[in-house]
Formats: sequence, structure tokens, C-alpha cells
Amino acid sequence: MVKNNVGKEIPKEFADQYGVFDEQFSNVKPFEEASRKINPVKPGDEKLLGSLREAIEKTGLEDGMTISFHHHFREGDYVINMVLDEIAKMGIKDISIAPSSLANVHEPVIDHIKNGVITNITSSGLRDKIGAAISEGIMENPVVIRSHGGRARAIASGDIKIDVAFLGAPSSDAYGNINGTKGKANCGSLGYAMIDAKYADQVVAITDSLMPYPNAPISIPQTDVDFVVEVDEIGDPEGIASGATRFTQDPKELLIAEYAAEVITNSPYFKEGWSFQTGTGGAALAVSRYLRRAMIDKDITASFALGGITNAMVELHKEGLVDKIIDVQDFDKNSAISLGENENHYEIDAEFYASPFSKSSAINQLDVCILSALEIDTDYNVNVLTGSDGVIRGASGGHSDTSAASKLSLVISPLIRGRIATVVDEVNTVVTPGDSVDVVVTEVGISINPNREDLIEAFKDLDVPQFTMDELRDQAYEVVGQPKAIEYGEKPVALVEYRDGTLIDVVNNV
Amino acid sequence: MVKNNVGKEIPKEFADQYGVFDEQFSNVKPFEEASRKINPVKPGDEKLLGSLREAIEKTGLEDGMTISFHHHFREGDYVINMVLDEIAKMGIKDISIAPSSLANVHEPVIDHIKNGVITNITSSGLRDKIGAAISEGIMENPVVIRSHGGRARAIASGDIKIDVAFLGAPSSDAYGNINGTKGKANCGSLGYAMIDAKYADQVVAITDSLMPYPNAPISIPQTDVDFVVEVDEIGDPEGIASGATRFTQDPKELLIAEYAAEVITNSPYFKEGWSFQTGTGGAALAVSRYLRRAMIDKDITASFALGGITNAMVELHKEGLVDKIIDVQDFDKNSAISLGENENHYEIDAEFYASPFSKSSAINQLDVCILSALEIDTDYNVNVLTGSDGVIRGASGGHSDTSAASKLSLVISPLIRGRIATVVDEVNTVVTPGDSVDVVVTEVGISINPNREDLIEAFKDLDVPQFTMDELRDQAYEVVGQPKAIEYGEKPVALVEYRDGTLIDVVNNV
Repeated sequence: MVKNNVGKEIPKEFADQYGVFDEQFSNVKPFEEASRKINPVKPGDEKLLGSLREAIEKTGLEDGMTISFHHHFREGDYVINMVLDEIAKMGIKDISIAPSSLANVHEPVIDHIKNGVITNITSSGLRDKIGAAISEGIMENPVVIRSHGGRARAIASGDIKIDVAFLGAPSSDAYGNINGTKGKANCGSLGYAMIDAKYADQVVAITDSLMPYPNAPISIPQTDVDFVVEVDEIGDPEGIASGATRFTQDPKELLIAEYAAEVITNSPYFKEGWSFQTGTGGAALAVSRYLRRAMIDKDITASFALGGITNAMVELHKEGLVDKIIDVQDFDKNSAISLGENENHYEIDAEFYASPFSKSSAINQLDVCILSALEIDTDYNVNVLTGSDGVIRGASGGHSDTSAASKLSLVISPLIRGRIATVVDEVNTVVTPGDSVDVVVTEVGISINPNREDLIEAFKDLDVPQFTMDELRDQAYEVVGQPKAIEYGEKPVALVEYRDGTLIDVVNNV
Repeated sequence: MVKNNVGKEIPKEFADQYGVFDEQFSNVKPFEEASRKINPVKPGDEKLLGSLREAIEKTGLEDGMTISFHHHFREGDYVINMVLDEIAKMGIKDISIAPSSLANVHEPVIDHIKNGVITNITSSGLRDKIGAAISEGIMENPVVIRSHGGRARAIASGDIKIDVAFLGAPSSDAYGNINGTKGKANCGSLGYAMIDAKYADQVVAITDSLMPYPNAPISIPQTDVDFVVEVDEIGDPEGIASGATRFTQDPKELLIAEYAAEVITNSPYFKEGWSFQTGTGGAALAVSRYLRRAMIDKDITASFALGGITNAMVELHKEGLVDKIIDVQDFDKNSAISLGENENHYEIDAEFYASPFSKSSAINQLDVCILSALEIDTDYNVNVLTGSDGVIRGASGGHSDTSAASKLSLVISPLIRGRIATVVDEVNTVVTPGDSVDVVVTEVGISINPNREDLIEAFKDLDVPQFTMDELRDQAYEVVGQPKAIEYGEKPVALVEYRDGTLIDVVNNV
């Protein structure tokens, strides 16, 4: 075992392979970018094939290869199951899958694991039944959990080498010019898919909306696509928004939002031209309302809003309170529509968004980000991956990326969820190191990271109760008691990469 | 000497290094794409530097390296001279330059060659004094002439490895998000520069219009840029249009245009949804007028117009006769403005436009292209590089790319220029092989390539005089006599690459 810099024990085998987490930026070094094989397409060659099966055959996909998918359709995705079913029917085994994330709808993955079709997974997250199955230990090889920026880094550096990317394309022409703003299942930004298209040896565009040449706008160009397949349906647009975006009426969430807004609007970053990322979730969306009020009152506008985009940001943009929207993913229908219609709403890829190894990511320019948590510990470490029972049910997402790079990162969370403390002595799984977290916001008050002396000074007259993390933990434990230790097994089921590729934690079977 | 498939003798040394031209598509094979070094940029790192000198120093540029430039400012460019002067002042020698092309305004290049600062050049073309100096033999190493598609191929395959790209940026933010539609010297599309940015190890953006973050639209993203420098002026926007775009009143040119339009509008390709590229030059622009009339008369619209874009195409687009414009370069101010304003006017890079080794280029989808010539021979080979005196004064451009890939390529040219025959027994320099040329159009009539039996059949009732190339040559020689053979020296001064990287010709000193 090798202990890393957040005190987590990493089995030597994996420590040797990946390295262990040291500090936020200590592993950021020049590197040679990965390259890809290109099969040139001559005049007269056709990319449009008759079936998904024909496309898989043409790629030469075989046992042991790596395939990838994007998760822009979220719970509405039909592509991953469709492709895996076909691969399974063809008798191909030992496949590594590298989706940008997995959703509940991908439950059939469990059977493909059991049947030997899938033997390796890397993903941002694992939800519900898949997470539970992985935590039970159904895979021989641990899943590798990567942040959105970390995945882009892994692909660009060759840590993930994609043989074939199967990309759901809301609209495509027969030569592979793709966008997500036209077509039947328009998900908006294709930011995560753009990276796969750029680095994969081969790319198969799967579309239910075939357009005349040239389809435009061009999010993924024909120069990144080998084959195009038309199918009946690639996804359910209603599924894109499911479970993510709602405004809250919960008094506890509203109080958290109010405190978060107090922190932000009284910070040195809240001035003309500031920038922010709010993410989704009830409290986060509620913060947007308070920020709107404050921007109007103080006659301040933001230069840009970043990240996964919700209608709340689009509304602020339309009101003139946010100059530009920089969009790597859309969380609802209105955001997807806005991307197609508003000239100051831009699509970016995951490398541009958050890769720690790129020639610069947008999060480096970000003033304020609001992040959620499943658990936070007294060292400010955050868990967004495993539940209080130790079972994988969350996703790394852009959490460790934005918190490291932005000037002010807020982690907002109720002190207690159900009958379980959220603020704890030690989180089950560290996804984001405490050094990246500036302020923790709960319904009882906030805790400022002691390493941010400038913020402690700036907030000394703030009209919000302030605590140490120990005090917040004590308040939580007072109500619901100290959580019982989880009884993990001996088998590593998930390796949690920090965004730089080192291991920040390992999750064992439960 | 090794004789290639168009009968040109290639010195063995170069034949061994590059291979010799065989057939249009015989050298198109799968390959591993070139990669680049990346210096990751951390939060807080600044890309904006105080001076060009500081930027050159930061890149670590040293003797023997390769630098590149784009030619989107054409005769209005200030960047190439500015950078080369600074490099010369710093005492750096033995530099290879790889601009997408060179213009008359870059005459100072001659002194930098003589002083040993520049020892290798690859470019699409060489104009006037630079061409003359090269043809005199002032360089030890021959210049490598590459087509626009061939340059993109060479960069993507690693034949050109750019250490530092110095890219004039009409507008940029301090993090290197660049476009060509905003700013003082707005040249419109940055299609050629985008390739340099994508593959160079280091990229310096040189701008005279620094914008707030994030500058958008984003033609070249921050993920492709290392440093940003602000200077007073990067170019003269008036120079972009110089010498390229005018409507002709010359009766000979109008007759050529009329014949070309007859060929196109009576071809099997002239139907709803067709596509075309016209290029510049008096006769080519006049063709646009005839095509406009024919499209209105026959109620036909084009799906797209491609290539270097002129206002003539923009007008057709605005009239609804051309659905989309796909734009790798703008030849005048109105085209540059249109790119910024029209949502169906799209910017593409040179790989997307014309690379023979890409996962598909737009020219593969092109129905009709109209090309010019300095000379055409009886085998339909075309010279667009050397004058009748054997001196380099032209540019390869997209000539060999579009003629090879489009379904119908027209080479339009007067039979005689000044007192010199244009149609000759053998062109001085082959840039485009005869197999790529479908129809030659002159003021006396046309000649259809015998290898296009389908066109001979389609045009059998065409109301335009038809000749063999021998007959056209005889008519030219009857008037002005057979041109005298050029007396070349023994020294190769330019290697003419075919788009696939093999040598189609070598130009010796005069």
C-alpha cells in the first residue's frame, strides 16, 4: 500500500501503474499528444452504411479493443445499449468501454459484463444498478473513474486509446458533419463527444436525422468521422433533462442557496465581468435566482457562464446579465435550443472546458463555481461518488476540475441527508481534495478553508454564521450520530483518478 | 534521374526522398497522424506577453527550427516580415519557413535568405521578386511547392513539423481564442491558419485587436495557442483583396466565361442541389454571372459553394441561389463580413477543404470547379507556377486538389497571352496532371479530355466549338509560333509536390 497526499491507501500494483495523488498541480508537465490512425477517404468513397452491424464490421472491431460513447442524452440514450447488444450478438468479447458517463438506462451493461463482452470500464460515474453491481464486485478489473477534464486529459495523452467511438449524432450528413442542435434527439452541445471524435482511430456516427450535405453548424467535422449509420431512434430528448433540473421549494435548500449567494456576492470576485458555473440540483439552481437579483441591484453583469448549462443560465443570458455562455453539455431542452439560436452561446469540447493538461482550459478563467457533495470531511475533502453505504452511485463529473481551477469554489450541501451526516470525519471516497475547496456552505452556515486567509479576511463581516469543519461535523453528529464505518471487502472495484491521472482513492467491494 | 508518370525527370536524390508521382490516388494510404508537444497552462499562468521578442524567447526558438505563417492577409500582411525581422535581429539562423503562401509584400524574405536566417522554404507559391530570386538560385536548398490540400496533408502526416507557428490574429483574447471576423484587419476565414494551430508544438497569436475573454466566435481555440502578443498593426485589410477580384470587360474573357457556363449548365451535374467552386480572376468571376442567370432560368439552386470565397458567391447566397458557403479563405472584404454575419456561411480548415489524406475533404463532394492556368499542354497537364520564361511567379493553390477530387473540372484560359501560346506541346512545369482535368475552355472553344467519354457523349450537341488539344495548340502556334525552349540551369530551385507528397516536377534555375 502507498499512502497518498489525502491519506488514502492505494494498493502498490495500482500506485505503480498510475502514480498516487500528490498536489493539485504537481503532476502537470509537458507531454507529447496522442495521435490516431487515419484512413483517408477518396472521392467517390461512401461513409453511409446500411446498418450498425455493417459499421462494426467495417471498423474491424475485435476482442480486446476499446470503444467509447458520449453521455449527452443522459437518461434518454439509446446508443450505448444498441451498440453493445450488436457487439454481443457478433460474439465479440473482452471489450473496454470508455463512455464519458453511464446512466441508469444503461443497466444492460451488467449482463454484458457477466457475459464477458465488457471487461473494462472507465467512466465519470456509475448510477443505481450498475453502480451497485460494480460495488458487489462483478468485474475482475476495477472501473476507472475519471473527471470530465481528466477523461479529456487521458484521451489526449493516450492513457485512453479509443479504437472505435460510437457517437450518437442528433443530426449528421452522409459524410459525418454532426451537430446536436438539429434533429429529433437534439441534446445541444456535443462537448464530450468532440474529444472522442478528435482522438479515436475510427468514429461511427449513429444518427436518426440524416441531413443533406453539408450539415451545419459543424460540431464534429467530417474529417473526424469514418462511417455514418442511420437508425430509427438514437435517444429520447425527454430523457436529457430527467432528474437534473428543478427549482426547489425546500426551505433547507433555499437557505443554503441564500448563504451561497451571500458568500458569492460579498466576495472580491463579484464585480463587472465576473464569471461563474452553477451546475444543477435544486439548491444550485436557486442560487441563480439570488445572483440574478444581486446583479440587477448592483448593476453588474457576468462576462460568461460556463459548464453544464441549464435554462437558468440561458434566462440570465437573455436578460443581458450574462454576456456569453460557454457550453460543454446541456441539461435541458431550452439550453439545447439556445445553443442553436443564440450567437453568444458557444459550444466547447471537454479539453477546452476542463483538461488540466491542455494549452489552457476555460475553468482556469472561472471566478466562481458552485458544487455539490455526497460527503465532505473535516479536511474539506469531497466525495461525490459513493453513498453512505459505500456503494458507487454518483459521478466525478467536473467536480475536481472546476474546484481546483476556479478562484472561488463553493461546495454546497445540507449538513444531514435523511438520517445520515454529510459532514464527517473522513469521507468514504475522496474525489476532490480539500485543497481545492474554498468554502463549504450548509443550512446552518459556512466554513472557509483555513488555507484561504484572503477569504477569511474578506468575509469577516459577512452576515452568515461561520464555523470550523469540526464544528459543522459536531452539529451533524449531534443530530444523527457518527456514521457507522462501512465494511468493505478486499477487492478493489473502482480506481478514482485525480484529474492529473494519479490515484486519489480506491473503492473496494461492499 | 527517375521519370514520373507525367514524363518529368526527377533527380534521384529527391525521388528517393519524396517518391515520384504515379497516379492521382495511388499513394493514398492509411497513416498515423502527427502529434505535437503540449505545455499545459495552469490557473494563473498568463499567455499575454509584452512583446514579440519576449514571445520568441519564450518559445525557445533556435537555429534549425521550422516556423509557419498563414497568408490570409495576402498582400496586406505585416506579420511575416515583422517576425522574420525580429528573428534576424536576435541572431537566429538556419530557419525553415512554412507559410501557407508568400506574397509580393514579403520581398524582405530575399535578404533573410541571403543572410542565412532562412535556409528552407515550403509554400504554395512565390510571387514576383521572391520567385525571381529563387529562380536565380539564391537558395542552397530547393523550395518545396505544396498545394493547399498537400500542405494540410504534409502537416498532418509530419512531413512538415512546425516548431512555432506565428499566426496573425485579427482578434484574440489574452488566452488565445481567435477569429478573423472581428478586429481591425479582419480577413474572414482562418482556414489555413487553423491547421498550423492544430499541429504546431507552439503557437504565438499576434493581434492588433485584443478582446475581452472569451473572444468568439472561436476559429482557433485557446487549447491550440501558447502565447499572445499585442502589436500596433498586423495587416492592411485593403491588401487582402488586391489583385484578385475584379469583373472583366475583356471580350476574350467574357467569351471564355460564356463557353465555360455553357459546359457547366449543360453538364449532368447542373441540377438541383449541385455544388461549385469558381476561384478568382476576371473570367472565373464572369462565369458566376452566367451561372446566376442559368440557375434563375432553370429554377435550380446550389447546395453549396466552396473554396476561396469572393463577393460574387456571397451575392448568390444572399439571393437564395446558393444554400451554404463553405469557406477556407476570403478574397475580399464583403466575403469576410459575410462569414461573420451569415449563419449559413461556414469556416472550414484546409484539411476539411482539400487534404487528400483526411477522413474526407469537402472537394470530394464538389460537382464543378473552375480553374485557371499559365500553360496547358496536349496531355492536359497544367502549369500554374512558372511563367513562359521559366521563372517562378505563381502558386499551386488548390489547383491540383480540386481538379482531382471534383466531378467536373474546367481549366479556363485564353489560347494566347501577350505574344505567347498558353496551349503548348509540353508545359514548363506540371502542377496538375492531365488526368485531373476534364475540360479545357478557351476563347475559340473547348477540349474534352478523351478519358471522360461520358462527357464527350453528354456534350455531343453542345453549341460550343470542340477541338482536340493538338488542334488548340496548332491554333495558338499559328498565331504566335512555337515558344522557344527555356534554357534552364543545372540547379534544382523548387520541388513541386503533388498533393499526395510525391514529386510531380522539379524547377531548375534560369
